[in-house]
Amino acid sequence: MYNCIICRYHEIATKGNNRNMFERCLADNIRHLLSGVAPCRVLRVRGRIWIEHPEGRDYTDEEISGMIPALRRAFGVETFSPAVRIASDMDAIRNAALEIAPPVFEGRPDTVTFRVRARRSNKRFPMRSKEIEIDLVSAVAGLFDHRRFKLDLDHAELTLGCEVRDEFSLLYFDTYEGPGGLPVGSNPRVLTLLSGGIDSPVAAYLVMKRGSPTDYVSFHSYPYTPAETTDKVKTIAAHLNTFQATGKLHLVNLLELQKAVRDNCSERLRTVLYRRAMFRIAERIARETGCRALVTGEALGQVASQTLVNMDTINRSIDMLVLRPIVGEDKLDTIAVAEKIGTMKISEKQVPDSCTVFAPSSPSTSVPLVIAEKEELLIPDYAGILERAVASRETF
Amino acid sequence: MYNCIICRYHEIATKGNNRNMFERCLADNIRHLLSGVAPCRVLRVRGRIWIEHPEGRDYTDEEISGMIPALRRAFGVETFSPAVRIASDMDAIRNAALEIAPPVFEGRPDTVTFRVRARRSNKRFPMRSKEIEIDLVSAVAGLFDHRRFKLDLDHAELTLGCEVRDEFSLLYFDTYEGPGGLPVGSNPRVLTLLSGGIDSPVAAYLVMKRGSPTDYVSFHSYPYTPAETTDKVKTIAAHLNTFQATGKLHLVNLLELQKAVRDNCSERLRTVLYRRAMFRIAERIARETGCRALVTGEALGQVASQTLVNMDTINRSIDMLVLRPIVGEDKLDTIAVAEKIGTMKISEKQVPDSCTVFAPSSPSTSVPLVIAEKEELLIPDYAGILERAVASRETF
Repeated sequence: MYNCIICRYHEIATKGNNRNMFERCLADNIRHLLSGVAPCRVLRVRGRIWIEHPEGRDYTDEEISGMIPALRRAFGVETFSPAVRIASDMDAIRNAALEIAPPVFEGRPDTVTFRVRARRSNKRFPMRSKEIEIDLVSAVAGLFDHRRFKLDLDHAELTLGCEVRDEFSLLYFDTYEGPGGLPVGSNPRVLTLLSGGIDSPVAAYLVMKRGSPTDYVSFHSYPYTPAETTDKVKTIAAHLNTFQATGKLHLVNLLELQKAVRDNCSERLRTVLYRRAMFRIAERIARETGCRALVTGEALGQVASQTLVNMDTINRSIDMLVLRPIVGEDKLDTIAVAEKIGTMKISEKQVPDSCTVFAPSSPSTSVPLVIAEKEELLIPDYAGILERAVASRETF
Repeated sequence: MYNCIICRYHEIATKGNNRNMFERCLADNIRHLLSGVAPCRVLRVRGRIWIEHPEGRDYTDEEISGMIPALRRAFGVETFSPAVRIASDMDAIRNAALEIAPPVFEGRPDTVTFRVRARRSNKRFPMRSKEIEIDLVSAVAGLFDHRRFKLDLDHAELTLGCEVRDEFSLLYFDTYEGPGGLPVGSNPRVLTLLSGGIDSPVAAYLVMKRGSPTDYVSFHSYPYTPAETTDKVKTIAAHLNTFQATGKLHLVNLLELQKAVRDNCSERLRTVLYRRAMFRIAERIARETGCRALVTGEALGQVASQTLVNMDTINRSIDMLVLRPIVGEDKLDTIAVAEKIGTMKISEKQVPDSCTVFAPSSPSTSVPLVIAEKEELLIPDYAGILERAVASRETF
């Protein structure tokens, strides 16, 4: 029935000089997301992205159903609609409306609110938008003599959209929401510190949504943490990768560092000292692999390591830019995003994580930088420990 | 009619050792927000904050109407309800329900959906929650023989809440939403780079919401920018200060620096070089005034200075922690917050700002750190220019 999908974007349209790059990046991403789902040609046509079958044939319902969830993951897309593309000719438009309406009305109650929304960018088309709407409403109503139509211009249950353009026209019923944002790949790659928790996957998602593809680094303390710890992180990374072309996952064993901190430093500082080591290891991996910034799921004031003072002391361990996209969010709002993007059901499984190994019962909420630096000097071969942790990482 | 307001919080309840500090901070903030609005005693009672009249009398309707918008700005409060506090005695509870119901039902259609929600933490109270609910529904229904009541346990238009506690009981109809977050003051003070735009006021709001009070620094280029530029920023800062005890506003004239950049550096780099100077000036003011981090309204990929590469190059100009709470947000989402918190109507007025002075027509979206550093060496007396900008600031 439908022979194309039209994708609309918003923020890209505001990009002056670089609009071309953004559009190309979005089209590439859509090709990637749809590969294996349905055969398609992806085209850029006047402020829209078009998807059509390479052989020019209609898509099957199954193909359309498969493409919808894929396009919901295409960052940059605001909305999209499966559509019929026809000649800009009123008879052709009306015939197409009569063809696509019956399956949409099927199964609905006999009384339904309905409207047509027409837009005409082709100013040589002989009818005005209002006239096109009246023509199509009458045609569709004529199909169903037994039904009662209520026109409702504001809150119709069914809206038939019609766009009359210069080269062709379009008809569609359903408009789906895309994720918004910018096409992933329009900013350089970053490295997300991923734990098994709720916050860091949301942070990774938000940065991808703003255009940066991400790799992941995660810390474990095998054999003090079980194999499930890393399995859980692998599952989360795999899920996040459904939004982008594959990002790598680096798994780093932090145990040697943690033992050294346990044996040489004050107990209450352990959490901050672990985090400083994680940042340093992550920074090295990022530089080695061409990632331009780190991303964390830190939220101001949420836990002991996320007070402003501790966040600052942890931040000062490295030079690299750190993005904290949920630093100003409440936990409940972050949970809502995690549910929307599908990471919540993975994150909520209780599995021990690296941070809990030798964790103090009462971690300090305010560790000044000078104290952290002093304590680190007490650790024999601190640099060597970090180096071994980086070198012995596993990458997936 | 109502003799108290009960405030509920969520995230504070998860704070183990520091819960006491958070509750005290929240109570202090509520006292501050209500001073001049209505006389009140603010008490912490078993996981709730209570507000009552110091003389024990009922609040007038005017006092309650004044307190509602003030409490909507109390970070840390999830919900609150004007309530009647009575003895934990069924006759007293029923009489109070009969007193508060009539004004709430007044002016509503004769058919209304209604329910009672009772909670009993006092386990020695002789009736169970269900029995209390039935008692109160019958009593209220008896008041209005001419009305038709429809009980609706899920989506009632009117809900009478009843809490039976050990020391007293509570009745209330309306539950209002607070802003959530953590009490402002539970984290150290920060300094927000405030422009007249939409983004930075939202960033300031989000960081206050996570507990950090904020001062503001804003840049102008007088006489190249008009007096309206700074007037607009003052209005925004004053509005943001309704959410916290007063934050200072520092106004810095950037013109000398901008002229030096114009005369000595490549045109396409101006935006990044301005921003690096702003960060350095802001960092100095923050250190001088005891602010522990900077806050910006940067959003990844939004404009030329906010590509990942430029954000990194700008970030490297200073050591201080920079919080970017909307780095992962789309513009439309930020606008929605700006509208909710009331800064949108101020920000949307078009006034020239400092960034537009000598702005390049095509700013570079990718300035490597080494290039920025090299260009800055071309500026005679760069350190002196920054020093004079800091020293000559006006503070409000």
